[in-house]
Amino acid sequence: MTPVIVTFLPEGTKIEARPGESILDILSYAGLDINNQCGGEGVCGKCRVKVTRGRVNFSSKHLGFLTKNELEAGFVLACQTEILAEDIEIWIPPESRKEDMQILTQYDVSFDWLRYSDELAPEQKQALTVDEILRYEAPGPLDQGPDISRDRALRPLCQKYYLELPHPSLTDTLSDLERIYRELRRTVTLFQVLRLRTHFSCLWGLAAKLRHHDWKVTATIHLRDLDAPTVRSIEGGDASKQNYGVAIDVGTTTIVAQLIDLSTGAVVGVEASQNRQVHYGEDVISRMIFACGHGGLASLTEAVGVSINSLVDGLVRGAGIAHHDITCLVAAGNTTMTHLLLGLDPRYIRVEPYISTANRFPRFQAAELGLHAHPKAILHCLPCVSSYVGGDITAGVLACGMSDHPQVSALIDVGTNGEIVIGNREWLVCCSCSAGPAFEGGGVKCGMRAMRGAIEKVRINGGKVIYWTVGNARPRGICGSGLVDAVAELVAEQIIDQNGKFIKYEHPRVQVADEVPEFVLAQPAETETGEAVAITEDDLGNLIKSKGAVLAAMRVLLENLEISFNDLKNIYVAGGFGAHLDIDKAVFIGLLPDIPRERIRFIGNSSLAGARLALLSTEAFRKADMIAKQMTYFELSVHPEFMKEFVASLFLPHTQMELFPSVQKSLVRRRKHASKNFT
Amino acid sequence: MTPVIVTFLPEGTKIEARPGESILDILSYAGLDINNQCGGEGVCGKCRVKVTRGRVNFSSKHLGFLTKNELEAGFVLACQTEILAEDIEIWIPPESRKEDMQILTQYDVSFDWLRYSDELAPEQKQALTVDEILRYEAPGPLDQGPDISRDRALRPLCQKYYLELPHPSLTDTLSDLERIYRELRRTVTLFQVLRLRTHFSCLWGLAAKLRHHDWKVTATIHLRDLDAPTVRSIEGGDASKQNYGVAIDVGTTTIVAQLIDLSTGAVVGVEASQNRQVHYGEDVISRMIFACGHGGLASLTEAVGVSINSLVDGLVRGAGIAHHDITCLVAAGNTTMTHLLLGLDPRYIRVEPYISTANRFPRFQAAELGLHAHPKAILHCLPCVSSYVGGDITAGVLACGMSDHPQVSALIDVGTNGEIVIGNREWLVCCSCSAGPAFEGGGVKCGMRAMRGAIEKVRINGGKVIYWTVGNARPRGICGSGLVDAVAELVAEQIIDQNGKFIKYEHPRVQVADEVPEFVLAQPAETETGEAVAITEDDLGNLIKSKGAVLAAMRVLLENLEISFNDLKNIYVAGGFGAHLDIDKAVFIGLLPDIPRERIRFIGNSSLAGARLALLSTEAFRKADMIAKQMTYFELSVHPEFMKEFVASLFLPHTQMELFPSVQKSLVRRRKHASKNFT
Repeated sequence: MTPVIVTFLPEGTKIEARPGESILDILSYAGLDINNQCGGEGVCGKCRVKVTRGRVNFSSKHLGFLTKNELEAGFVLACQTEILAEDIEIWIPPESRKEDMQILTQYDVSFDWLRYSDELAPEQKQALTVDEILRYEAPGPLDQGPDISRDRALRPLCQKYYLELPHPSLTDTLSDLERIYRELRRTVTLFQVLRLRTHFSCLWGLAAKLRHHDWKVTATIHLRDLDAPTVRSIEGGDASKQNYGVAIDVGTTTIVAQLIDLSTGAVVGVEASQNRQVHYGEDVISRMIFACGHGGLASLTEAVGVSINSLVDGLVRGAGIAHHDITCLVAAGNTTMTHLLLGLDPRYIRVEPYISTANRFPRFQAAELGLHAHPKAILHCLPCVSSYVGGDITAGVLACGMSDHPQVSALIDVGTNGEIVIGNREWLVCCSCSAGPAFEGGGVKCGMRAMRGAIEKVRINGGKVIYWTVGNARPRGICGSGLVDAVAELVAEQIIDQNGKFIKYEHPRVQVADEVPEFVLAQPAETETGEAVAITEDDLGNLIKSKGAVLAAMRVLLENLEISFNDLKNIYVAGGFGAHLDIDKAVFIGLLPDIPRERIRFIGNSSLAGARLALLSTEAFRKADMIAKQMTYFELSVHPEFMKEFVASLFLPHTQMELFPSVQKSLVRRRKHASKNFT
Repeated sequence: MTPVIVTFLPEGTKIEARPGESILDILSYAGLDINNQCGGEGVCGKCRVKVTRGRVNFSSKHLGFLTKNELEAGFVLACQTEILAEDIEIWIPPESRKEDMQILTQYDVSFDWLRYSDELAPEQKQALTVDEILRYEAPGPLDQGPDISRDRALRPLCQKYYLELPHPSLTDTLSDLERIYRELRRTVTLFQVLRLRTHFSCLWGLAAKLRHHDWKVTATIHLRDLDAPTVRSIEGGDASKQNYGVAIDVGTTTIVAQLIDLSTGAVVGVEASQNRQVHYGEDVISRMIFACGHGGLASLTEAVGVSINSLVDGLVRGAGIAHHDITCLVAAGNTTMTHLLLGLDPRYIRVEPYISTANRFPRFQAAELGLHAHPKAILHCLPCVSSYVGGDITAGVLACGMSDHPQVSALIDVGTNGEIVIGNREWLVCCSCSAGPAFEGGGVKCGMRAMRGAIEKVRINGGKVIYWTVGNARPRGICGSGLVDAVAELVAEQIIDQNGKFIKYEHPRVQVADEVPEFVLAQPAETETGEAVAITEDDLGNLIKSKGAVLAAMRVLLENLEISFNDLKNIYVAGGFGAHLDIDKAVFIGLLPDIPRERIRFIGNSSLAGARLALLSTEAFRKADMIAKQMTYFELSVHPEFMKEFVASLFLPHTQMELFPSVQKSLVRRRKHASKNFT
């Protein structure tokens, strides 16, 4: 078959393709990534493009996602459309653009609670610390001059030391390598007690390098294990400031990477994108199945590597640094994601007795995995607890610091799986429940991640609706925090009942589409897409199931531990809700228990925060090892009371209203108020 | 130019070559190595071949090495002869064959004193031990079954452990890697206290491997640093017996390699060959100069690598094992040789202030140096003391065990450089003198290394000469031990005087060739080459200089340490003399001091013995590090008394006869006896 030319607008990018290829695949190898949550299955409807010239062949799956008008205008789902033997021209609408996501998920992850710690009460600060110095002392530059001890509290996994070596003489005849060691010991207290090692390749060309640079060199030392610091490269001159690390949250759906200046601890940039593995399956199970097929594992490992590389490339470009300035990477992901990243077969994780290849991972040479970084950069993965509790949870516990303190706290990580950890510095117990992706924007008609145009905050006051969007852009959808707000407001305004069913059909924003009632948050005229952003009764059902699963899991776990909510010193909430989760509203809908609000803290992407901490502190990495070792997994599915609790939770906030006294009080108050204003 | 065909006889090997190429080069790329001590400079005369058909172009350098008859018969020096634009046929005489050397230097190295330790008095045994268990207890197999503790005294740098892992179950859900760790800890006490590490590549495919082999695997663990044992490979099934190491003496001229079964400690084979670097220069200095030229370092590193590989290939073939069974290599060589082996630029060793790149070397991946072994095998080099005292000396001290004991002993390593170490477990001092290669067969008319046909022992009784040759072959030359014998006998028989000058011209074996008197040890009719094996007055001069330098160095060093010869508990003599050095004769000519003979012990190739010890024992390797750290270098050249001592030593045995009372007594007795029998 002769190739045809596909032109993508508005860029005008032209690429050769073969008849029969899907537009999604062509976009992929053209390097033009578009949204696609279902891995090309035609079930998410996110990959809309418009064929502006030429004909295509598309499947009937379109019909559920595109209106008649749209179909007539040439809109198709890229994943369900094959090109024919003729040149075509395709326009990519802005809302389908992945780039938007890359830029705008800064909102999703820049809620860097470590850097906002001044907001906390002193007592809370204490409760949160993993590595106090690292967090609360603004880390300054490592050295002001060659004489100052660099042996500071900021001890990233990889450190660079600029050394001005004394020239050798007949009375000082140490070898080149031992001269470097001596200087390292002189300037860094730590190395007076630890034995230094060197990667053999550092010796190649070392003699000439030292002499060419007049005995001024920079040694790069990896420190993950304090008992074996290793010199992995020696550069001429002062390169001590060119030391960057990347912290990576390897999510099943989304990958977020932060570029960190390891000489100061500062976050230099952040990028996020879809995990390209979604092309091979949406969830962990389908990826594991795909990995079992011929070449499947290699494809998945390559896909996540390519995803990370594209983020790293963006970070490097944005920061104006070079790839070889990246000396170290730390990744946190669930056990399967970590296996796939490292090229390890996850198939035995899936089948009884559910065994992983490893839970604690050796350091990997980043170059061996094809990652874009210094040729001798190392990739560290945060340790997993078990096949079903991964490094992302270890990272979360590390980030919130709950394992440092005598009082019992809880971490709730709401994602496709809801994960709950309860414990203190003596013990940690965790469980996992299937929460569904509703709070991340999945399974919700207008749901989306917290990208530009996502409604992140909603107020309904009588007939009026006020909303805020990410980036103050025209609305395109609604993200987790917006959904929590919307549900709470709809209940408070008695537009829906506590089962999530519409009751106030007369409200001007309530309409029925395809026999499903929905509430319009943004009118078509206001939105970027020209279509209303609405929340349907079906969406409400999904959200109630999600929040119900999380609360039920938490209640069963606490019951089994014989602890009540009130015994919890703190509850840390993590997940992809967006930048600002309204804790009050989350309690109001029964996602979180009704305890004093100051004890609940939204910490955003705790997997990323934990990875960053581990990257910045060998001590934190060691703690992550301890956390993973310490944690016990509690299997919910063998506890029949979970189902009972789950059913009891399918109410807003809960069937047992006595569990939510403050909500009850507020509802009563609201109703009184409403009856006055809106009848 | 059209290539021509060169046929080598007796094999009949045919190879294409270009007119103008030297026969030595053609032989080299045909894989037919022949003797060649001077690196193709035409000054050693060892590379004789016979052109049996066709014409060649040869240089005038031949004339010094070939007789008129030989020239007429077609003999040429391969290095000085270029082929012309016609096919030729060349016969390689047996004495020029390198293979002879490979087979026969077993004599040179099989004097494995560690294995003959029963010859020693118990008190001496004590004095010799570095690692008593390793040496004196015959190491048995590491395990009789899976349950026996393998935590034995034999702890080579690389160990293999066969593990039968319990199958995972719902009540035993450790990850694959942690399952291996648990089993290693169960069976090996050592690993209960040490933290195990794993090379990341071991995880690739591990899940499938374990299950395919029914949870029976062999883990290969490298142990050089006891604080960081590292699993470097995991094989399916029981491969614990396929664990071999190679100990290598990287000499400037000769490389000797022993294959060691690391599961038993047994020496399985030994091979020796010329260091192919001799093509680029005969001695250390000329190699350093060559290394400075464009591509020089790479050529030298490749040459020594190729030399080692050819030995390893031979060892592997001989033992019927596979290359990947070799998990570990330990090399001992002088500082420059070690640098060239590892690809490190030696140029700054040569110029003031004489700085090496490193004296203590990180572990190198053998594969990165192109060495034939397991892809993840490691090459360890014994640490050097300084730019001029190398790992071969560290190895020697380790092998003789002098650094383990309170009494002061000495090690004398006689090679091109004579090296002397004096000390005990508290201190070690060493010096180096230029002894010349006479005792290794260099600079001596009929000198050769201790290969087949070398006269290794000589008795002269009146007119009668008795000699013994290596391999009981027809004599081809004379090796170090034979030279020591011959000189002593010539003095005792008063054929030469104590200055090394001939005095008994009437002796039937004395003749004058080219105005130089010589003593014929083997008549032309007896020898393999058809030419006499003789020792000339010039040879005697060289030998006296060699032995004088060694003794003078020793005396100056002792004087400066304020120690007398009689304070030395033991003198260990190492070097390429051959298998059996007659200590009495060595004292008689003044190479060794006149102390009670039982305190002097010839230990053969101590560099190889030390490398083997370090390979077989992590503890021994650690000791080698200590030895190198402990040793102080004593610079002879700045001590004017050295020259005085050297001149005083240019006498047989010494100008101060009172230093050699037993020799004096024996001379007097001999003379009386001789005057009766031979006038």
